[in-house]
Amino acid sequence: MDNKLRIDLRSDTLTLPTQAMKETMLNAGLGDDVFGEDPTVNILEEQLAGMFGMEAGLFCPSGTMTNQIAIKLHTRPQTEIICHKSSHIYLYEGGGIMSNSLASVKLLDGNFGKIDAEAIRQVINPDDDHLPETTLVSLENTMNKGGGSVYTLDEVRPIRQLCKETGLKLHLDGARIFNALVSTGERPFEWGKMFDTISVCLSKGLGCPVGSVLLGSQADMKRARKIRKALGGGMRQAGMLAAAGIYALDNNVFRLEDDHERAKALAVILQQTPFVKEILPVSTNIVIAELEQISPESFLEELTERNIWAVKFGKDQVRMVTHMDFTDQHLEAFESRLKLWKK
Amino acid sequence: MDNKLRIDLRSDTLTLPTQAMKETMLNAGLGDDVFGEDPTVNILEEQLAGMFGMEAGLFCPSGTMTNQIAIKLHTRPQTEIICHKSSHIYLYEGGGIMSNSLASVKLLDGNFGKIDAEAIRQVINPDDDHLPETTLVSLENTMNKGGGSVYTLDEVRPIRQLCKETGLKLHLDGARIFNALVSTGERPFEWGKMFDTISVCLSKGLGCPVGSVLLGSQADMKRARKIRKALGGGMRQAGMLAAAGIYALDNNVFRLEDDHERAKALAVILQQTPFVKEILPVSTNIVIAELEQISPESFLEELTERNIWAVKFGKDQVRMVTHMDFTDQHLEAFESRLKLWKK
Amino acid sequence: MDNKLRIDLRSDTLTLPTQAMKETMLNAGLGDDVFGEDPTVNILEEQLAGMFGMEAGLFCPSGTMTNQIAIKLHTRPQTEIICHKSSHIYLYEGGGIMSNSLASVKLLDGNFGKIDAEAIRQVINPDDDHLPETTLVSLENTMNKGGGSVYTLDEVRPIRQLCKETGLKLHLDGARIFNALVSTGERPFEWGKMFDTISVCLSKGLGCPVGSVLLGSQADMKRARKIRKALGGGMRQAGMLAAAGIYALDNNVFRLEDDHERAKALAVILQQTPFVKEILPVSTNIVIAELEQISPESFLEELTERNIWAVKFGKDQVRMVTHMDFTDQHLEAFESRLKLWKK
Amino acid sequence: MDNKLRIDLRSDTLTLPTQAMKETMLNAGLGDDVFGEDPTVNILEEQLAGMFGMEAGLFCPSGTMTNQIAIKLHTRPQTEIICHKSSHIYLYEGGGIMSNSLASVKLLDGNFGKIDAEAIRQVINPDDDHLPETTLVSLENTMNKGGGSVYTLDEVRPIRQLCKETGLKLHLDGARIFNALVSTGERPFEWGKMFDTISVCLSKGLGCPVGSVLLGSQADMKRARKIRKALGGGMRQAGMLAAAGIYALDNNVFRLEDDHERAKALAVILQQTPFVKEILPVSTNIVIAELEQISPESFLEELTERNIWAVKFGKDQVRMVTHMDFTDQHLEAFESRLKLWKK
Repeated sequence: MDNKLRIDLRSDTLTLPTQAMKETMLNAGLGDDVFGEDPTVNILEEQLAGMFGMEAGLFCPSGTMTNQIAIKLHTRPQTEIICHKSSHIYLYEGGGIMSNSLASVKLLDGNFGKIDAEAIRQVINPDDDHLPETTLVSLENTMNKGGGSVYTLDEVRPIRQLCKETGLKLHLDGARIFNALVSTGERPFEWGKMFDTISVCLSKGLGCPVGSVLLGSQADMKRARKIRKALGGGMRQAGMLAAAGIYALDNNVFRLEDDHERAKALAVILQQTPFVKEILPVSTNIVIAELEQISPESFLEELTERNIWAVKFGKDQVRMVTHMDFTDQHLEAFESRLKLWKK
Repeated sequence: MDNKLRIDLRSDTLTLPTQAMKETMLNAGLGDDVFGEDPTVNILEEQLAGMFGMEAGLFCPSGTMTNQIAIKLHTRPQTEIICHKSSHIYLYEGGGIMSNSLASVKLLDGNFGKIDAEAIRQVINPDDDHLPETTLVSLENTMNKGGGSVYTLDEVRPIRQLCKETGLKLHLDGARIFNALVSTGERPFEWGKMFDTISVCLSKGLGCPVGSVLLGSQADMKRARKIRKALGGGMRQAGMLAAAGIYALDNNVFRLEDDHERAKALAVILQQTPFVKEILPVSTNIVIAELEQISPESFLEELTERNIWAVKFGKDQVRMVTHMDFTDQHLEAFESRLKLWKK
Repeated sequence: MDNKLRIDLRSDTLTLPTQAMKETMLNAGLGDDVFGEDPTVNILEEQLAGMFGMEAGLFCPSGTMTNQIAIKLHTRPQTEIICHKSSHIYLYEGGGIMSNSLASVKLLDGNFGKIDAEAIRQVINPDDDHLPETTLVSLENTMNKGGGSVYTLDEVRPIRQLCKETGLKLHLDGARIFNALVSTGERPFEWGKMFDTISVCLSKGLGCPVGSVLLGSQADMKRARKIRKALGGGMRQAGMLAAAGIYALDNNVFRLEDDHERAKALAVILQQTPFVKEILPVSTNIVIAELEQISPESFLEELTERNIWAVKFGKDQVRMVTHMDFTDQHLEAFESRLKLWKK
Repeated sequence: MDNKLRIDLRSDTLTLPTQAMKETMLNAGLGDDVFGEDPTVNILEEQLAGMFGMEAGLFCPSGTMTNQIAIKLHTRPQTEIICHKSSHIYLYEGGGIMSNSLASVKLLDGNFGKIDAEAIRQVINPDDDHLPETTLVSLENTMNKGGGSVYTLDEVRPIRQLCKETGLKLHLDGARIFNALVSTGERPFEWGKMFDTISVCLSKGLGCPVGSVLLGSQADMKRARKIRKALGGGMRQAGMLAAAGIYALDNNVFRLEDDHERAKALAVILQQTPFVKEILPVSTNIVIAELEQISPESFLEELTERNIWAVKFGKDQVRMVTHMDFTDQHLEAFESRLKLWKK
């Protein structure tokens, strides 16, 4: 069998910018964004803020930075964040919650990585010297570790309500928010009403090389700029990167449906693959397979021999993510290579 | 019924120093401990280090400080501690792990607040940029939230072994280590071999007014002094407090058995009390009652009307702790007041 | 010559509690201060707050802790404190400004360790992403490194005014505030009006073994309790220590004048001692001698041979501090031992 | 007079990428740098490390981030950095030394922003509980606040020697290191021998849109990657930005001499301009003018009316920086517009 075509499903961060996107970047108006003078950065920030009905945006080099800045905005040392125990902000940002913000975490369980208002209410700390003050709830949509699971507005509203009542801030790690929106058909500006800050990633399914945007109030984004400076996230002629973001918002949002379709097809194929016990429900572009009678390492090795690339994702799981550079041609190759696999 | 005698079971920190202890304090040799010149502090540190076969000790104003200093010794920002999800260091030290050490936590489940080597091994982070480096395991013995449960040396040895293999440090929050040792009959110097640092509290069952001692290597205690300085824990003529500690080590260790006996008797009484569903196994001086058909708040109110004081301890639980100032007379009164309680 | 009588001028922290003070400690009413139930601690906090006309107080194990808590109250990470470059908070608290509060420092020059409103105004940071936000001014009175120099109310008023205008908080490190007040005859409650928080030390000239009190608003002291918890400063039956504080406020304030007189006498003697180039003006109980043609180390060695103890204090300086345990007898011995010294 | 041509001397960060540079960016090989797979980033890091004879490099979004990562590498909480009081790391990185690393600063004076071994030696803290441990010396070359002043190797060698003896690390903020090297004719690899880490900026005189590279040992750069992750500096297809860096190293280093020439010419013109009292010696591309009888604000306003842009730089100073986009044509316009200025 011909395995020459590389099938790389490790992440949707792997996408390369298209020629059209790169040409937009080349022609972008530029200035020094540390002085606030890069016109393309300013347009991107305004355009995205506008979509979500929020006051302002701040362009940053990564989604980790937009999340970490939001956490610094909404916490102080000796305060506590409530989030799912599988949240990206807790698991995969290098301990940044603690090392950047000196904040504690209250970790909730919840199916497919999602949490609800009742569970949150239970763990808000009362006023007691022994306990850090709870100040922030953070959701992730889509939820990476939950298999790309999706929150609906109806699920978020009671959480928003609870936060309002109790004076908590609410942040959305929207690294893949457009995957969620495309999946539910809900509109960005309805989501903007729910949160104090939203982090939107451009370098995942949207296909940009670099960058995320933090959205929030004017006052918060002003403070966020100062925090970004000390973290080292102030970039100069960042308009070249921002131009890719504008291009992606204009061209690459609706095509995410294709990724979702292919993810579902991929799940069907995997279901029939040896050693795959179960597939988490596929809502968007992430497919998580639960294995049996094999270690993830050995399973990945089998895939690699077929020039298929995925990642280990917890004790008995592997993850695959579809994206712009995984086409129907790749899907067909994926199928033909796996259907020959005999246990 | 006569409810005049106050029965205060909220904590063993409530004990008042006896006249004999206070006279020892009055006569203690004193000096300025910030200059390292308080002879009584030096004796206490050496005596306790000697008992545990460790090189040196450091006297501090509280067990929270000895724990927090140990955590600062064994971590750096962007590293991670493994401990039980009900650990005092995580739950009740004001978010100090994060605000003092900027370290992250990996929280394990485990019966009665205890964790084992296999569970620890599973969550040691591999070398990956996304993950904080695991550097420390912390145990608590006895385990407060586990109902005063006790680790044996046989349970700790595999953890010690794992830490050795993987280069992790091992700290013991021994706030109630003497309760544990009196319960198992194991000897302090065997415990000293297991840990890099041990925090021993003098102001709980041992009956001192103030103070804890951190034990460890000479080099670590030298660094610990510097950390204590910046936290504000350097005290001047601290020998008055240390004298109480020496007195307690000489006089109040073996009497902890009485507290344990009374705790067991107390559990038997509680078992027959309305609304008490279950009592966690009683190993030492802590009794945790699981309630049903009543909120902890209402249950505590009922107790208070009988001049019995305890504390809420989680969603459906109340905690009682026996101590020096809870005598047989108190136990009898406790029994007679509760047996009249009809649902 | 008979050098048997030890003359220890290294610090006024060295004083030992008198028998009378210790008996007060023995008889103090006690409770668990972490529960807020120690009556003697509560009285001390109220008494001292009352003297300074402030709302509330918080008893802590050290002056470093009261200062560090105040700094945490009035700053956030990425903010800046303005203080003299020789301030205790900057120089001698183990880098706590940074390690506890993550705050930056703007260090001012100024004669005898004092700063004025005009100098402060010059260095308040404008609103700029590159600069930490200035939030706090901290004064020290008396000023240790300034030779025990004293601020008057007339000097503080313009600083208070400036802080009000610009929204800055104003903290007083009053480790030796009673020395200052005794020297100027100004009254505590006038000083209380000037500051957001005042740290008062009991274990220096006042002769207590352990403890400092932070004074401020009810709201700030409530937050301060929480900060104290995580730093490990919560003590249990702290009333024994607080009793010494109450005793000292009642008995040891006005006798500070004796220390000041003896310091002046000491300066006169030192002026005639070999290698002493100059003495900083003596206002209170601190004497700083500028040396020439000798290193501080060698000079201290000469003193030690005469059983006189002092400390190096900067490149060419030594410091001596008078206190309760330095009596007229010690002063005479000091004089007779030094007058025999030939270069 | 015709003022249409904008003369922007506010900073050399303002340069726009040339068409040639942008085309290189468009054609760069790309990959996901968070996975370590961006070939162009890898080449840039290796090329620059090779030039300086250092083991490895790490590409980051800004010079603030490379500096802040280096500080995190070489310090721990409660340690201290020695640097000039006008250093960029202390003054202009948002308080990052403290908020990112929890480290303290010892600030030295020194002509034109430069410090020497003797001054450093004086302020290394001895081993004392009250003092943070000194662990790092940081130099800046060229020195922005010193007027673009330059260290020679002969000046750095004794500092290197002192650091070696005393176990201190030595970092170079080489934001404009190529300006320094072009000015002295010294070679990068000789500088690499002197330092533990060097931060090199690509987006100043070298004309790149975004990016800096940190250089150091393999082990340090491995740890640096982890720190970069938590700060949010991990970028995906960063090769587009790195390609500009490679282009700049190949094409834009030696032309810095032109900037230096024009800066000297600019200084001569300024010397004859009203209100200019003095010009700091011009060694590279920075010109700092000391004003008299006018505020910097008013002076800048006068310039702006002539379509000349500069920045305030301290109480009585303005700064101008020459760069790629300030050509001979601009210099001539500058001269003709200023020579008409009558006081």
